[in-house]
Amino acid sequence: MGRDRMTLSEELLEANARYRESFDASELQVQPLRHLAVLTCMDSRYTAQGIMGFSLGDVHVIRNAGGRVTEDVVRSLSISAALLGTRGCIVIHHSNCGLLGRSDEELRTRVAEASGARAPFGFLGFEDLEQSVRDDVAALRAIPYFPPDYEIVGFTYDVRTGALGLVE
Amino acid sequence: MGRDRMTLSEELLEANARYRESFDASELQVQPLRHLAVLTCMDSRYTAQGIMGFSLGDVHVIRNAGGRVTEDVVRSLSISAALLGTRGCIVIHHSNCGLLGRSDEELRTRVAEASGARAPFGFLGFEDLEQSVRDDVAALRAIPYFPPDYEIVGFTYDVRTGALGLVE
Repeated sequence: MGRDRMTLSEELLEANARYRESFDASELQVQPLRHLAVLTCMDSRYTAQGIMGFSLGDVHVIRNAGGRVTEDVVRSLSISAALLGTRGCIVIHHSNCGLLGRSDEELRTRVAEASGARAPFGFLGFEDLEQSVRDDVAALRAIPYFPPDYEIVGFTYDVRTGALGLVE
Repeated sequence: MGRDRMTLSEELLEANARYRESFDASELQVQPLRHLAVLTCMDSRYTAQGIMGFSLGDVHVIRNAGGRVTEDVVRSLSISAALLGTRGCIVIHHSNCGLLGRSDEELRTRVAEASGARAPFGFLGFEDLEQSVRDDVAALRAIPYFPPDYEIVGFTYDVRTGALGLVE
């Protein structure tokens, strides 16, 4: 982090105090108003809400490296649907993703070089942006742990232009 | 979703067109400027950036049900660190979380009632908010796939007041 831990925590608490000055989300409930979840990448250059015009309270947001479908994503989406009433998921992968064009072996080596330990799990890199959206939409559609009327749509997001592109 | 798929997609593309009118993030790079990642819940009522005053481009954002540590989170954070230069993670769990006070068996039953299928995986519910932050900070500190100087801090977030609380 390039600073000691207390200084970072103090800075975060100070920024949070400013956030609280205009805080107006206290009446929102735990169930998302739009009955939707978004699955997308951890990338820093966009928010899931911003690029689609959602407001606080509207949608669940699930983010990981790549916006890929994993057991943890299925855990999250199945709870989102069964407990909190969502009835669909918007899958978004983006251009210039760190996972694009990188193999498991390359990513495992990079992590080992940085940490000293070789990770046993897969890293879920992908070769083609639209195809990875198609693959993950198909993967979610095959999951049996969502309600019968659950719908899944897929988009790409261009980090250079801010544009969403419908895949399916 | 309460509407047909094409109508939702059209609505999202229309909202995205408005987003693009004021889009100014085209120069941001894939490496987060603050060299940090945030791990928090999928909850709709806050953004990871907003509550701590971060801007677009500053931090990776990883979100799942609860903000819990899973293999997928370790995958994401290890790529974030080794490939994209982050050197720390801020863990945030929040009040009024759907996972708070719910057992695996209750969550498995709720998912089975909604979907017709019993999921084999754990749902990672928790009994105490501060303790779950401590548990997940400890879990991340024990992971060998991050750089030696990697730091982890933990907070609670109160969805009624907007307040962060430092746990450790």
